[in-house]
Amino acid sequence: MSAQLPDILTVLRNTPATLTAMLRDLSPHWTHANYGPETFSPYDVVGHLIHGEKTDWIPRLKIILEHGESRPFEPFDRYAMYELSKGRTLADLLDEFERCRADNLAVLEGLKLSEVDLVKTGMHPALGVVTARQLLSAWVAHDLNHIHQVAKAMAYQYRDEAQPFSGYLGVMRDFLS
Amino acid sequence: MSAQLPDILTVLRNTPATLTAMLRDLSPHWTHANYGPETFSPYDVVGHLIHGEKTDWIPRLKIILEHGESRPFEPFDRYAMYELSKGRTLADLLDEFERCRADNLAVLEGLKLSEVDLVKTGMHPALGVVTARQLLSAWVAHDLNHIHQVAKAMAYQYRDEAQPFSGYLGVMRDFLS
Repeated sequence: MSAQLPDILTVLRNTPATLTAMLRDLSPHWTHANYGPETFSPYDVVGHLIHGEKTDWIPRLKIILEHGESRPFEPFDRYAMYELSKGRTLADLLDEFERCRADNLAVLEGLKLSEVDLVKTGMHPALGVVTARQLLSAWVAHDLNHIHQVAKAMAYQYRDEAQPFSGYLGVMRDFLS
Repeated sequence: MSAQLPDILTVLRNTPATLTAMLRDLSPHWTHANYGPETFSPYDVVGHLIHGEKTDWIPRLKIILEHGESRPFEPFDRYAMYELSKGRTLADLLDEFERCRADNLAVLEGLKLSEVDLVKTGMHPALGVVTARQLLSAWVAHDLNHIHQVAKAMAYQYRDEAQPFSGYLGVMRDFLS
């Protein structure tokens, strides 16, 4: 299907509540555990999403609308949260993510993007030319990617205990050799 | 880590609210779309989870506690929801899942399982001998597997629009050849 703004807004609006529900009342041995070297824990994911709200999606959309391809996007630091989240609680990060996301969706709605706007192009520093519609679709897919990753990081913690059932559990596939 | 009852209960308790948040206000072209032949849509997943509440996890736990390995578990029909969900709305299914899960967690808490209970064994019709702890861990991992799957089914709908960014999106990996 073609990515349409009302759909994009709905999925993006649901993500903070989804992560809050998924991580509610969990002990740090769930929220701070990843699934191997250089992978993200749920805690890392929420910090990473906040940094995306501040420096990635809406700032890049504005560059497309204001400068087109003439001004490449700023590179996005995918690991910035390792420093930025230091000393903060997960509850605090989830609150900030919810606020940042709500603010950004208000900006997105306020832009009242037309079909003409959605085909406008910008310059990604690594990927080359992308349209506004591709950027917004990637924002949605990026949320889903990280919900998918939180489920994976959590499932990993039971890879041994649930092992007899792992043939039925696609989420475990990456952990089995 | 070793699977402990308080952790198991917390993750299982969070799943209905997680799926409700994730699927809120989405159009049928999200909720009823899968990611290829014989895969589950989000709508299919919720029906499948309801059937698991009714016929899989708690009934099997009770068989372990009452009969040990002498009475194999009933086989679980992973596709029963294709018939059972017919004509029902997703909102109705989500409500039923929330109720069934709450009832089952009340049963689980009421059993006040000891460490001795958790090492008791039963007979899975396909997998052979499993412990109560393995069954409960698989229940948790099964929830996470299906949250992971809902995110994947949704991301699949934007596989073309988000394609330039797919190298950054692990959730898209299965869709790229």
